[in-house]
Amino acid sequence: MLILVGFGISGFKGISLEGLEAIKEADKVYLEAYTSPVGLSVRELEEIIGKEVSLLSRRDLEESTRILDESIDKKVVVLTPGDPLIATTHVSLVLEAKKRGIDVKVIHAASIYTVAMGESGLQAYKFGRMATLTVPDEFVPLSVYEVIVDNKRRGLHTLLLLQQDISSGEFLSVKEALSLLVKMEDIKKEGAVSKDTIAIVLANLGFSDQVKVAGRIKNLMRFFQNFPPKPAVIIIPGKLHFMEKEAIMNMWIDEDER
Amino acid sequence: MLILVGFGISGFKGISLEGLEAIKEADKVYLEAYTSPVGLSVRELEEIIGKEVSLLSRRDLEESTRILDESIDKKVVVLTPGDPLIATTHVSLVLEAKKRGIDVKVIHAASIYTVAMGESGLQAYKFGRMATLTVPDEFVPLSVYEVIVDNKRRGLHTLLLLQQDISSGEFLSVKEALSLLVKMEDIKKEGAVSKDTIAIVLANLGFSDQVKVAGRIKNLMRFFQNFPPKPAVIIIPGKLHFMEKEAIMNMWIDEDER
Repeated sequence: MLILVGFGISGFKGISLEGLEAIKEADKVYLEAYTSPVGLSVRELEEIIGKEVSLLSRRDLEESTRILDESIDKKVVVLTPGDPLIATTHVSLVLEAKKRGIDVKVIHAASIYTVAMGESGLQAYKFGRMATLTVPDEFVPLSVYEVIVDNKRRGLHTLLLLQQDISSGEFLSVKEALSLLVKMEDIKKEGAVSKDTIAIVLANLGFSDQVKVAGRIKNLMRFFQNFPPKPAVIIIPGKLHFMEKEAIMNMWIDEDER
Repeated sequence: MLILVGFGISGFKGISLEGLEAIKEADKVYLEAYTSPVGLSVRELEEIIGKEVSLLSRRDLEESTRILDESIDKKVVVLTPGDPLIATTHVSLVLEAKKRGIDVKVIHAASIYTVAMGESGLQAYKFGRMATLTVPDEFVPLSVYEVIVDNKRRGLHTLLLLQQDISSGEFLSVKEALSLLVKMEDIKKEGAVSKDTIAIVLANLGFSDQVKVAGRIKNLMRFFQNFPPKPAVIIIPGKLHFMEKEAIMNMWIDEDER
């Protein structure tokens, strides 16, 4: 049996009682640690759950033969950050397991998607499709700009996740992400994300040092000038309801415009 | 201090270790139980956490004076189903608490929003805005139809939550919800949700008797003919990627069209 267990967005303490139970009954525990900080070392985790934990790389997951072979006659837990099924890789793993007749169980947890929507104070049903800002190579990811334009035209909010570099483990920094948005505007010129656009940045959500700020992009760029690359999301709001405005004003940093 | 603790979508065992710790340290514990089944009785819950649990109605939450007054000098936990901040009522409560200078902490959990996206096998970034199908009175909620049309035009999936009646606690049944969709089509005639449209129904997610089926709406109506009103969502897919098609085929019920 293959059991995917999510541990949420802010370290291992986000695991559910049901998830903890599954680990305790498992014959083998894998930890997928490349997409999110776990909040404690593998050694500490092993002490809590009383058994060995093996680290999984993305390649291990994509070439999942070993995990699936073991799942045929053992209880194999794969611990994943966030909610296990929001990452496409895990959906593929589930489908592959089912093809081979292996039982699959998924134990859900908080996902950055809904946590970010909630913590922003914006209304969940007013979010359009989301997108991921990727670490730029020679191309500026203009498809993200199109998503923002499309959502804005309908008055909808856009949630932008910041990609983590697989090899280095580093997240795209907020400053770099904001610069990318402005660069897109310079190329496309549809007025969706100028330096004067209001945006919300939520960083380190769920940790004690979480940061939630809203303001014009030019001021956010100054605010995040020396901010270390940590897990963060950017929200470009669409049309704001008065209660949403009130929520944003709680995080407002543009001193000249309060 | 006001502490909102989510316990996810499938009963109390979905609470996180962090959430459990918060309850154990709390001076007062409230349980909001009108939107989702808790999976165990208040008495059982009290035994697990070793303290009294008071039930909250929606009115108690909306007229939150008592809860906020107590939060000034006590650690007050409000246990909520799903993720606490996805419900607008809780966002208002947080804003109200902040206005009064009360510290607020939110401990997140799995939300039906991301759980349903994940369990459907469809890709999270291909969902457009979501909507809620409400228990019908004299009006057919045509704004929901507009959301589906708008998402479909962009190839995006639509997640439809089924409303729970506040007074009776009963959920809109899947059969009734599907009939509503067909009724909308009869009025609007834009071809978004005919009886031949493919839809996915996910019911009782996270519980041992969860049901996941996909098929044409006419066949889903037959399948859910005598299905009891339980928590469920309906997804109207947009354009399907081949891996999404594969995921749906795992739940396919239209025998004549496999």
